[in-house]
Amino acid sequence: MKQLGTVAIVGVGLIGGSIGLALRKRELAEKVIGIGRRQVSLRIARRVGAVTNTTIDLAKGVESANLVILCTPVGDIIEKAHEVAKHAPEGTLITDAGSTKSILVKELDGKLPRGCRFIGSHPLAGSERTGAGNSDAELFEGKIAIVTPTPNSQAADYDLIEDFWEALGSVVIKMSAEEHDKALAVTSHLPHLAATALAATIPESLFRLSGTGLRDTSRLAGGDPNLWLQIVAQNRGPVLAALKQYGSQLAALHDAIRDGNDERLMEILEKGKKHRDALGS
Amino acid sequence: MKQLGTVAIVGVGLIGGSIGLALRKRELAEKVIGIGRRQVSLRIARRVGAVTNTTIDLAKGVESANLVILCTPVGDIIEKAHEVAKHAPEGTLITDAGSTKSILVKELDGKLPRGCRFIGSHPLAGSERTGAGNSDAELFEGKIAIVTPTPNSQAADYDLIEDFWEALGSVVIKMSAEEHDKALAVTSHLPHLAATALAATIPESLFRLSGTGLRDTSRLAGGDPNLWLQIVAQNRGPVLAALKQYGSQLAALHDAIRDGNDERLMEILEKGKKHRDALGS
Repeated sequence: MKQLGTVAIVGVGLIGGSIGLALRKRELAEKVIGIGRRQVSLRIARRVGAVTNTTIDLAKGVESANLVILCTPVGDIIEKAHEVAKHAPEGTLITDAGSTKSILVKELDGKLPRGCRFIGSHPLAGSERTGAGNSDAELFEGKIAIVTPTPNSQAADYDLIEDFWEALGSVVIKMSAEEHDKALAVTSHLPHLAATALAATIPESLFRLSGTGLRDTSRLAGGDPNLWLQIVAQNRGPVLAALKQYGSQLAALHDAIRDGNDERLMEILEKGKKHRDALGS
Repeated sequence: MKQLGTVAIVGVGLIGGSIGLALRKRELAEKVIGIGRRQVSLRIARRVGAVTNTTIDLAKGVESANLVILCTPVGDIIEKAHEVAKHAPEGTLITDAGSTKSILVKELDGKLPRGCRFIGSHPLAGSERTGAGNSDAELFEGKIAIVTPTPNSQAADYDLIEDFWEALGSVVIKMSAEEHDKALAVTSHLPHLAATALAATIPESLFRLSGTGLRDTSRLAGGDPNLWLQIVAQNRGPVLAALKQYGSQLAALHDAIRDGNDERLMEILEKGKKHRDALGS
């Protein structure tokens, strides 16, 4: 792709830092400006080479940006996008890396001032590690990045965002924000809630009897409750639908076990295994 | 511990093979006889050094055994124990490595012929890999082994079984078979069913959108449905109770999300994180 000039990253944690590091390693941007709320995080981002410049002043940080990536918690993205649009050069393109898309797109698509435009993105990449200190230039390599343009979106804007993620190594999938949110409710938000409910179910007296199986199954529950509160709040309908489907499967298991219906139990165990094997290791 | 003489292992898969390898590496047994149904598995067990001798004839395999370890699927243990007691030297001690204990202990404690005695064991060790070819002499190192004696059990028998697992590197916990089954329903059988239901809930069309989170949370669903059918069938009551507790947590999450009750949602997310963090990585 063509060189991006100045890229501003708002929120320099693991995702923002990794985007910065990937851009710099691939020489895709002349300047990468890290914008955050705490000097300490920004210092770390600078030290690992994720950004070339840093500031806690968003207005100043975006004033010469050619592209702005919002990597804050999803609950802050709408507000930050409006703030960026006030201060960035006219017509600046903005994208994000948030785990939900419908509400963001609804509030930002065609609604930004001064010709600024928003196209939603969601890189399906992450790590148990957090913070810019764990930035990884290869975090997006071979991973899916979902981009959610609308009928309003300009083709050139979409192409640039697609090129951007592809340049970072991602495989881009285009879908609507609603389609994204329904899909991720099942593949991401549901696993998080299933892990949380499982961890919450285990009484402390049994912690010492936990094995690797329980630890794998409940791993996601270790995520930041504040982030997950925001994600769930922004995707309530699809998340509730996913929880219902999961509840039905669990009820089917429960009833088959209660009734001694081995045939039905086997059917569900085999379906689970078939699906799991297809997901790969 | 004192040298065990001849140890017979019935069922030489990952667990049986690893026990054999650990016994040989630590020079705890003079002979380790692997007993199985298929020559091909026994050849693998011999080749990796897990056993010194092999046979598909159980009667012959146990005829000079000082200790017999049943490592077959749980559904076969009762039958195998009776068969062993018919052919082993009078008064031979038998233990197992099965994932359930109550039914086994109920059917075997004080009920074996010719002075043979059964004490249940369950090493909390395993791997995604299966088969004797993946045997690991350190599989039990630092792991918990639960031993479930009854008021009938002789102290010397219990001591030998405790010494046996400790010699393999395990930390032994003594509990009743009923206590074991209730605990494992929550820490092991429930995670398996939660993972199975999750994998079964994901439609094939969304497999491509799966990330590491979903893969971790559903990993257990890849286990052998035949084995899990047997485990669940032998622990129906506690498993149903565990599924109910899990269902209640999920319902609490569902209702908090539906009602926009962020305080309640946060409470559950935080409890899940606290418990998960305590389980360790």
